[in-house]
Amino acid sequence: MKVAKFGGTSVASGGQIEKLTEIMQSDPSRRIVVVSAPGKRTDDDVKVTDMLIALGEKRIKNQSTNDALVHVIERYRSICAELGIEEKVMADIEADLEARVAFNTEDEGVFMDQMKAAGEDNNAKLIAAHLNQSGFDARYMNPFDAGLYVDGEAGNAQVQSEAYEELAKLKDEDKILVFPGFFGYKRDGQLVTFPRGGSDITGAIVAAGVNAELYENFTDVDSVCVANPKVVDNPEEITHMTYREMRELSYAGFTVFHDVALVPAFRHGIPVSVKNTNNPEGEGTLITADRSKGNSYPITGIAADKGFSIVYVRKYLMNREVGFGRRLLEMVEEEGISFEHSPSGIDDISVILRTSELSLDSENRLLTRIQTELDVDDTYIEHGFSMIMVVGEGMDETVGLAARATDAIAKAGINIEMINQGSSEVSLSFAVKERVTDEVIKAIYNEFYTKTTQ
Amino acid sequence: MKVAKFGGTSVASGGQIEKLTEIMQSDPSRRIVVVSAPGKRTDDDVKVTDMLIALGEKRIKNQSTNDALVHVIERYRSICAELGIEEKVMADIEADLEARVAFNTEDEGVFMDQMKAAGEDNNAKLIAAHLNQSGFDARYMNPFDAGLYVDGEAGNAQVQSEAYEELAKLKDEDKILVFPGFFGYKRDGQLVTFPRGGSDITGAIVAAGVNAELYENFTDVDSVCVANPKVVDNPEEITHMTYREMRELSYAGFTVFHDVALVPAFRHGIPVSVKNTNNPEGEGTLITADRSKGNSYPITGIAADKGFSIVYVRKYLMNREVGFGRRLLEMVEEEGISFEHSPSGIDDISVILRTSELSLDSENRLLTRIQTELDVDDTYIEHGFSMIMVVGEGMDETVGLAARATDAIAKAGINIEMINQGSSEVSLSFAVKERVTDEVIKAIYNEFYTKTTQ
Repeated sequence: MKVAKFGGTSVASGGQIEKLTEIMQSDPSRRIVVVSAPGKRTDDDVKVTDMLIALGEKRIKNQSTNDALVHVIERYRSICAELGIEEKVMADIEADLEARVAFNTEDEGVFMDQMKAAGEDNNAKLIAAHLNQSGFDARYMNPFDAGLYVDGEAGNAQVQSEAYEELAKLKDEDKILVFPGFFGYKRDGQLVTFPRGGSDITGAIVAAGVNAELYENFTDVDSVCVANPKVVDNPEEITHMTYREMRELSYAGFTVFHDVALVPAFRHGIPVSVKNTNNPEGEGTLITADRSKGNSYPITGIAADKGFSIVYVRKYLMNREVGFGRRLLEMVEEEGISFEHSPSGIDDISVILRTSELSLDSENRLLTRIQTELDVDDTYIEHGFSMIMVVGEGMDETVGLAARATDAIAKAGINIEMINQGSSEVSLSFAVKERVTDEVIKAIYNEFYTKTTQ
Repeated sequence: MKVAKFGGTSVASGGQIEKLTEIMQSDPSRRIVVVSAPGKRTDDDVKVTDMLIALGEKRIKNQSTNDALVHVIERYRSICAELGIEEKVMADIEADLEARVAFNTEDEGVFMDQMKAAGEDNNAKLIAAHLNQSGFDARYMNPFDAGLYVDGEAGNAQVQSEAYEELAKLKDEDKILVFPGFFGYKRDGQLVTFPRGGSDITGAIVAAGVNAELYENFTDVDSVCVANPKVVDNPEEITHMTYREMRELSYAGFTVFHDVALVPAFRHGIPVSVKNTNNPEGEGTLITADRSKGNSYPITGIAADKGFSIVYVRKYLMNREVGFGRRLLEMVEEEGISFEHSPSGIDDISVILRTSELSLDSENRLLTRIQTELDVDDTYIEHGFSMIMVVGEGMDETVGLAARATDAIAKAGINIEMINQGSSEVSLSFAVKERVTDEVIKAIYNEFYTKTTQ
């Protein structure tokens, strides 16, 4: 069986939901649908989840909620009207939303979680109704009834391992199940939403629970591209990549998924397919644990992320001080800063971190501590770097890949601040000044994808 | 004033000592000579220091010392004979050696230290006599009388900061001073030898103490070469380099000095000149804190050292665990292992260390701890790597240097295991398999030194 998850734009309107229905019809092995809340129909549209947040905040501030509530109801009503869904369904959705707004607000986190979850929950009911009326034997599946048990505070649900055992029972269901994404329940019945990428998380958990042959992630792009289409014109598409490649790429700005969202699928070895609701016949991108070698290109993708800072430390005879690097990283950790890399030379060590991890205070404290406690010759920090990731399985064993990438960057007249190769088997990363980020991506892309020779 | 230090081969015979005398004559600003024990005259010769160690060990084992003692005495006698030095000097040397052998052996370290130091000490007396008979007003200078105070256990003398103040007084001496290298004294009169590179250390300390305008290090090579002449045919010579370049090069197998030996000179800003006793008119290699830019080549030297191991660690979502890298390095430290680099990817981190830091036990313990305490997906260790260092001031700002180096290696068909660029302003380093070390050096040398274009 397959689990198919549909993102916000794929369930944003009646028209989109009809595409979902066609997709379900075209492959009977699709037995579970996980749905998001209605997303944007056009670029300037508002997502239902954002409407619900606005509505919930009015309630917390004791402002009038009437208009905001009508706004949400109207959105569902327009979808129901488009699909000709029976009035009873809309009446249920309306009653559900009114009940949620009236909920106890004492714990604001708990209150907001159940408000936000209304988007997916009601959309699942609506879609189940539409599937039934389209000839399917479908039913809405409540995450609590399904045993999607979680722990953690509001907005940060963590799946419990017993949830997988509970969800495994869904394999025996005769009906098509329509499952709302984005939230689970504590054992005591409290609803908790997942962090970023919430519906993707639900999909991955359910797919893992039922041990699906495939987890299909329907979104609004044909596939994952080799490089950001906003930077490179008509980039090649990635037809097949590994979990590890996906993870390295998503680290550095690939926004199709939040990288953690797919972890439940990866951990259980479930293949993931990224497909386009608007072009379901397209090949899409398949993500598996391994892939056969022999891609036509030696690399799989190029990604970049801005907003990095580098702390430089220099001390004569540093490499003779056992524990120097460890003590430096300890200071970084004691400031609550998570670091990305720490390349070191003989008398030099750098710490590369996301600038967002720093504050002016923590930066000053850190430099002062390094200077005084490690008695260094020099230490300073520089901001405004990008990390560029060049990703591909087997890169570490391919002679000359690093040379081609560095050469391409050099030919573009760009200085590389740091090269990190050899720590990862699947990637090569560079630090460059932020302002040259796009140029570097283009240079690497052209080297590997537009040259005729390899 | 200049301080001139002469290495073992430069004082190995009467003929060599005559060259020393000529060198002293050619420049009256050379006021202090620091001398080693007589070294090898030919490749299969035995150094006096090694004879003394053999002699001392016989004494400790209560074996007969007669033959071994005669062996050492004969060596000095042959030098005296060659130079026509008065019999009294040789009688003093003989008495000194006999007294040392008869010394208390209760503390074996202390006993061996004074045995080993006999080589330099008696050579200094002999050379002082020769200088006097050659028309100089010279005298032997005992390190205790000069105030070269040290601390630390036998074989591991550490200079005390007050030694520099004492040694500063030597500036006012009218006579040429002949100073034995390799040892100092504790305040209570106990002799302690320096670790590896011992006479170089003495020279650097004395030069720093008298604030010499130049510390000349006379050895048996014309200058420091850009690459090992055993690997590259007729490599270019380095005429001028910085302390930092020297340090990075000596880290990776440049054997002209032990890198720590020059620290006292570096710390006091004393320029160092490497010259050839057998060709004192040669330009040699000058080492200073800074050097004017505009070398004819973009890099200063290439060095390599074998014997590295790499510990690989992989864990999914590693980069979200604050403190992961620090905890890993802590385990390494707790095994008493000093690490060289620790490059990291998203889900991977490696620790590069010298294989000599490991034992089979510590390796197994470390891997077990990483596996269990850090709960990683995979960890293993591989041996047999070389580190290649490409060194040059300002490398970090030169576009394309890394590309040229990696390209040259790739064109030689060699896979780079790790690239480390950006942590040091003066070097770029690579890890490669040991068996390709020489090929990599040749490839980089040819790229930067034999190509006509840059």
